[in-house]
Amino acid sequence: MELAKALQALQKLQENRHAYAHAQGLLTLDSATGAPRGSAHARNVTLGILSERAYQIFVNDDTRALLLELAGQKDRLTPAQARQVELLTRELNDLTRIPMEEVVAYTQLTNQARDCWVAAKEHNDYPSFKPYVEKLVEFNRRFAGYKDASRPAYNVLLDDYEKGLDMGILDGFFEALRRDIVPLLALVKDRPVEDGFLHGHFDKARQAVLAGDVMDLMGLDRRFFALDTSEHPFTMSFHRDDVRITTHYHEDSVASSLYSVIHEGGHALYDHNIAEEYQYTCLADGASMGLHESQSRFYENILGRSEAFAEFLLPRLRVLFPSQLEGVSPRQFYRAVNKAQPSLIRTEADELTYSLHVMVRYELEKQLFAGQLTAGDLPEAWNALYQEYLGVDVPDDTHGVLQDTHWSGGMFGYFPTYALGSAYSAQILHAMEKDLRVEEWVRKGELGPITEWLREKIHRHGMMLDPGKLLEEACGEPFSAKYYVAYLTRKMKDVYDL
Amino acid sequence: MELAKALQALQKLQENRHAYAHAQGLLTLDSATGAPRGSAHARNVTLGILSERAYQIFVNDDTRALLLELAGQKDRLTPAQARQVELLTRELNDLTRIPMEEVVAYTQLTNQARDCWVAAKEHNDYPSFKPYVEKLVEFNRRFAGYKDASRPAYNVLLDDYEKGLDMGILDGFFEALRRDIVPLLALVKDRPVEDGFLHGHFDKARQAVLAGDVMDLMGLDRRFFALDTSEHPFTMSFHRDDVRITTHYHEDSVASSLYSVIHEGGHALYDHNIAEEYQYTCLADGASMGLHESQSRFYENILGRSEAFAEFLLPRLRVLFPSQLEGVSPRQFYRAVNKAQPSLIRTEADELTYSLHVMVRYELEKQLFAGQLTAGDLPEAWNALYQEYLGVDVPDDTHGVLQDTHWSGGMFGYFPTYALGSAYSAQILHAMEKDLRVEEWVRKGELGPITEWLREKIHRHGMMLDPGKLLEEACGEPFSAKYYVAYLTRKMKDVYDL
Repeated sequence: MELAKALQALQKLQENRHAYAHAQGLLTLDSATGAPRGSAHARNVTLGILSERAYQIFVNDDTRALLLELAGQKDRLTPAQARQVELLTRELNDLTRIPMEEVVAYTQLTNQARDCWVAAKEHNDYPSFKPYVEKLVEFNRRFAGYKDASRPAYNVLLDDYEKGLDMGILDGFFEALRRDIVPLLALVKDRPVEDGFLHGHFDKARQAVLAGDVMDLMGLDRRFFALDTSEHPFTMSFHRDDVRITTHYHEDSVASSLYSVIHEGGHALYDHNIAEEYQYTCLADGASMGLHESQSRFYENILGRSEAFAEFLLPRLRVLFPSQLEGVSPRQFYRAVNKAQPSLIRTEADELTYSLHVMVRYELEKQLFAGQLTAGDLPEAWNALYQEYLGVDVPDDTHGVLQDTHWSGGMFGYFPTYALGSAYSAQILHAMEKDLRVEEWVRKGELGPITEWLREKIHRHGMMLDPGKLLEEACGEPFSAKYYVAYLTRKMKDVYDL
Repeated sequence: MELAKALQALQKLQENRHAYAHAQGLLTLDSATGAPRGSAHARNVTLGILSERAYQIFVNDDTRALLLELAGQKDRLTPAQARQVELLTRELNDLTRIPMEEVVAYTQLTNQARDCWVAAKEHNDYPSFKPYVEKLVEFNRRFAGYKDASRPAYNVLLDDYEKGLDMGILDGFFEALRRDIVPLLALVKDRPVEDGFLHGHFDKARQAVLAGDVMDLMGLDRRFFALDTSEHPFTMSFHRDDVRITTHYHEDSVASSLYSVIHEGGHALYDHNIAEEYQYTCLADGASMGLHESQSRFYENILGRSEAFAEFLLPRLRVLFPSQLEGVSPRQFYRAVNKAQPSLIRTEADELTYSLHVMVRYELEKQLFAGQLTAGDLPEAWNALYQEYLGVDVPDDTHGVLQDTHWSGGMFGYFPTYALGSAYSAQILHAMEKDLRVEEWVRKGELGPITEWLREKIHRHGMMLDPGKLLEEACGEPFSAKYYVAYLTRKMKDVYDL
């Protein structure tokens, strides 16, 4: 085949895949936002049909021939084209081993599981959700086996979300973290921090105004970014000019939605800043889950939970919530939003204990896939680990094993990327501070130079590089957990006046 | 082919078509609700790809062979199956004459036109929209020619929206209406009706509560119906258990969103009440645009603008807007929401002048398709007809030719169904009153028996019957405009104490 024609076919293929991903993504977004509760049936039928077609247009002999042809002419491709061929070939190889009927059945299953999970969480009814967990684990184990039967299934899944990751690396990473976090937590957990003012009554309409203000502050131009509400906040992108974030307003907490919006806004900026030339190709995504999470956590924690940000934000917050925040100083606000306290809910956890929440899930997933634990054992095992790692009693499954949406979507091996992302973000801060006076920009509420640094070093590259390589190029050295440990130690000493 | 297999293929075909319609519909809904303004590009690409595929799965030799096969075994089909074969064959014949590239180009064009129209309306910029009108008329003229070159293009379009309708029927219908409406309007238009209390300040959040209350009152169960906001209210259904309506809150008017929700709610009930067995088939739609509109107008005008409804609603309205509605009696409210006054905006028009707004559009469309008028002439011609029919001066195109979304979606020939729908609804009321004490149920706020009558006589049948036949069976006689004229006369005499 002529090269120009082959490249045209490659572009067409990717545009087609993008269209189905867009439609399927929108159906999923809709199911979590605007769709009425009882509407699952038609959506499942539609998703089944679309996912079958999406599979067919990619997994076929023409695609294989096309990719082989282009791989054979690798020297004549641009780096971006070569990378597309590399990633698509990898994906095709992975998928080819999975029969299409299983892909379709899996899509329908996750869709049903998500609806079930919403109801199960609402009614504290883990037993209704248990069969889905069983089936989802089974599917994932089988899929992992199709991809690489020579490795433990969980390693294959970890590598899916974070290229190069495995249990060996994670065991070491978490062990190092635990070594430093647990003593730090012991030091601070009984020291009082006043945070009652964060938990008054905060009108939802005013929280929505705050969310809009925060979007403006972050440069989330409403022409390209939209905000909606859902049970669990998330980000979904259809194109760099069509990025959606969601939040959830809790009337008894001002920090919850505030930091959700900042967090999802960090994801959203990453997606939006991916180079124009990569749009409609497989390169138009974050380099990895961990890298993506590093951006959301960078904005949420490193910027959003800094004292400098509290100094900028508080006068504005007080306009919306004058009585609730009367007499609160920036330092008090800063200390309150960084209060380290063992708790039940991962998404509400402070930076220090956050990784312990992730470790619980990592441990359970490892055991599930090693066959040492069944879906039926999960609630009890969950509660035991929360007692062991965090010292808290889980009152019910709604606040325990049912709290996260991930497993209902079949996402096993995803949670560890949250902790990795936090560690990446601390290392990124270290590198950025060589170029920028980060704290000063934050204190002025001018995040533009910070976002521009991230765009240049990380965002714009999309999936051009594997995550380890990208981080190394951005930071000038390979990943190391030491920056995260140092950051947490420094911050906790500051917050707690140690 | 074996009959059972052919029927299975028929079902599969319709499920596939439903899936693409669902995805395309959701993209369109999203573009009018949650999507950021600048997101059109990716959506256009996706819609182009999906519409091409939707066309391909239907318009092909297999479909033709299948429908021929089933038509040949007509005696062995259920009435519903036979009707599916009839309607699909008709559609296939219509579509086959249109080249696929034109269908795809048209879908993309309407998508772009809609985005352009939103901006043009906002900035009073008809010239930017004009090229789209030109192209859309040209496309529609060509499409009509493909379908039936022997008839005037506009007749073919009218028949598309309302089986059996043509300019001859409409000229007569509108002439009859004009004969009675114009003298009636002359009688009442200078008689004062106090309606200032409808135009105070009405908080959007409270209007949203009202919208929810109205949905409850109408039996729009939130498990299956959802409400969102958009520039122009509309209804979209993906399944009987997934029906969406939108509204637009104007802070200076309580009646606007209130009656929008009742109106769209009427559409929504029709869609929801279509028989379960017709779901995922081409029968799962209203019998015609006019019949659909008769249901929305029945709830909005015949029920919602009755004095009995004012008696029921007002005490509830006063809880939400106590100061604005202080001292207003049900009769005052009833008179205010029925005030007949020549005005600029169709969707805000009273029942009496509404048909005159439709006549303007009918006249312009007729002339556009007869080649007596160009897209460039439209604003001036629009303004002249508003002066002639309604006696009002149009201040700008935003309040004139740009006010409606329909033309941006390529919908020419649709407007007349609005006036027909109103006429149908008056005839339906006449028939219903033989069985039910309509006014008494409304006064109690119990709409269940009324909806049940409509479900039984009209809704559940979906597209089983052509509109004329369905109306005749529901009402016991063929369509006649006399019930509408009598209804309007009676009502205006009551409102104006004539």
